Amino acid sequence: MEKKQISAKPFMYPMPTMLIGANISGKPNFMTIAFCQMLCSSPPIFGLASMKTHYTNIGIKKNRTFSINIPSEEMVKVTDYCGLVSGHKVDKSKVFNIFYGNLGTAPMIQECPINMECKLVQILEFGNNEIFIGEIVGSYAEERYLTDGLPDIKKISPIIFSMDTSYWKVGGFLGKAYSVGKGFEPDKQ
Amino acid sequence: MEKKQISAKPFMYPMPTMLIGANISGKPNFMTIAFCQMLCSSPPIFGLASMKTHYTNIGIKKNRTFSINIPSEEMVKVTDYCGLVSGHKVDKSKVFNIFYGNLGTAPMIQECPINMECKLVQILEFGNNEIFIGEIVGSYAEERYLTDGLPDIKKISPIIFSMDTSYWKVGGFLGKAYSVGKGFEPDKQ
Repeated sequence: MEKKQISAKPFMYPMPTMLIGANISGKPNFMTIAFCQMLCSSPPIFGLASMKTHYTNIGIKKNRTFSINIPSEEMVKVTDYCGLVSGHKVDKSKVFNIFYGNLGTAPMIQECPINMECKLVQILEFGNNEIFIGEIVGSYAEERYLTDGLPDIKKISPIIFSMDTSYWKVGGFLGKAYSVGKGFEPDKQ
Repeated sequence: MEKKQISAKPFMYPMPTMLIGANISGKPNFMTIAFCQMLCSSPPIFGLASMKTHYTNIGIKKNRTFSINIPSEEMVKVTDYCGLVSGHKVDKSKVFNIFYGNLGTAPMIQECPINMECKLVQILEFGNNEIFIGEIVGSYAEERYLTDGLPDIKKISPIIFSMDTSYWKVGGFLGKAYSVGKGFEPDKQ
């Protein structure tokens, strides 16, 4: 079938669904984002894009710290809620149970399977977005989300975001990376 | 259950699985990456992290163009293969059927449901990684992957990457974004 040109939009599949936390005037606030990803393993560098008008940005710039919280599929309603209502208008500080790590100013969500606290290292700007680049200085999880000491994607059940503005579950296992392609012969495709 | 501190590594769930293309000495090459995401919708800005030693980086810097190709779950073996073998040692130019768009030097994979061609706008460095930031100038898809003219995640069947080095399918529908959280009442959680 023929390829057709479609509009040059961000057609990335899949995207993650994260709750980003920051303290503003001493109160935790959380926003829901999909435009984020790791940029480096060592040091562990993470980047996220947030519209300049977002309330959370104020706290990230003020404290130079933020948190990454990975919600599970059971948390889809509260995750969407945090993207629907702005901290400019609604106090979201009581929505979750909060804990703090080494940085002391990056509020993390007890209910989320995985939490990471970051110190801000750089800010970029594109269009209406600020890109916050942070170094992860602490990661947290309950034992029930780990297998052999490491986070397990099926135990976490993270939420996939699709550009048509819908949320999806993680499905079945496809194969081991750096393994399933061994023995693949391009000529015989 | 109590939160425990785990090592400060890139524990992002889910991650995407992309084939990034560039021409080196006039021949297309592709690498498999997970550290990539949109950074802005308007203009459409995309960022990807690639180890400095990767062969594809040479072409991205030389031509200042690259492509993003989203493989479907049926392509998991060839996708893993492109991450296992380096263009420094193996000619991957015949692995896929290739087409070019407006830029002329960003090779795109016919077999992938979604393709985007990018012009390089900025390079960052963290640890052993180069971060290539590009503006998407063209997006391509076959009609069979679209619903109402836009890419459909279930028709694309993209591959999820997990940090324990495994690939996963997209599963069931969880809800509409900017909708499922309406009416959520934090006090009653």
